Amino acid sequence: MSHEKPQSRPDVDASAACSLSLTERTLTPEEAERVALMFHVLANPIRLRLFSAAASHKNGEACVCDIADACDAGVSLATVSHHLKKLKEVGLLTSERRGTWVFYRAEPSVLDVMGRMLSRSAQPGPA
Amino acid sequence: MSHEKPQSRPDVDASAACSLSLTERTLTPEEAERVALMFHVLANPIRLRLFSAAASHKNGEACVCDIADACDAGVSLATVSHHLKKLKEVGLLTSERRGTWVFYRAEPSVLDVMGRMLSRSAQPGPA
Repeated sequence: MSHEKPQSRPDVDASAACSLSLTERTLTPEEAERVALMFHVLANPIRLRLFSAAASHKNGEACVCDIADACDAGVSLATVSHHLKKLKEVGLLTSERRGTWVFYRAEPSVLDVMGRMLSRSAQPGPA
Repeated sequence: MSHEKPQSRPDVDASAACSLSLTERTLTPEEAERVALMFHVLANPIRLRLFSAAASHKNGEACVCDIADACDAGVSLATVSHHLKKLKEVGLLTSERRGTWVFYRAEPSVLDVMGRMLSRSAQPGPA
């Protein structure tokens, strides 16, 4: 049995939306609710800065102090932690505790899912 | 001089964000404000359904009645128009009046800009 702690899992299953494109067909109400929740998390300037700080940090991961330093966002560590939790809930970040510190890493598969939603490969052209 | 009416222009200049990727570096506060506004527009289930209805409609464009019909969203035409206006403000939709009707069309360049924000081509890998 491994002593490594498992990475946290997102509350929103991004894989359920993995084949969606906003240009392919009208979303069902259920799909729209799920997708809106994912975009909602990125509709906040502080969360965007925290996410970009974590995702672009050396080695692709950062602890909460690194992230707060990179942003210099003028918000408390508690507020930073709150926003990081929101990013984790939709799976955009995963976290892993190592000793005293929790490290955050951008989740490529969720970025891919969201990017695909905005792709226009299946967009109908003019007649 | 052309008698064709010009297409509406967005209030948010998406081209100003066209080289941004959330995984490349920490966004500046100004960039984060601009990008958050774009994601905010997609963080609403009704707007997502309306956008997907317009973007996936035959010939890539639709009038407000077509969009409302495709969604069957249970909201008034006034509410539909309000949400379409929000999508226009960030440039995700453009509109063009032809006689009595206003036609809406998804703007590929803005979708591309938003998709690039979520791309991870410049993401740093593990050391």
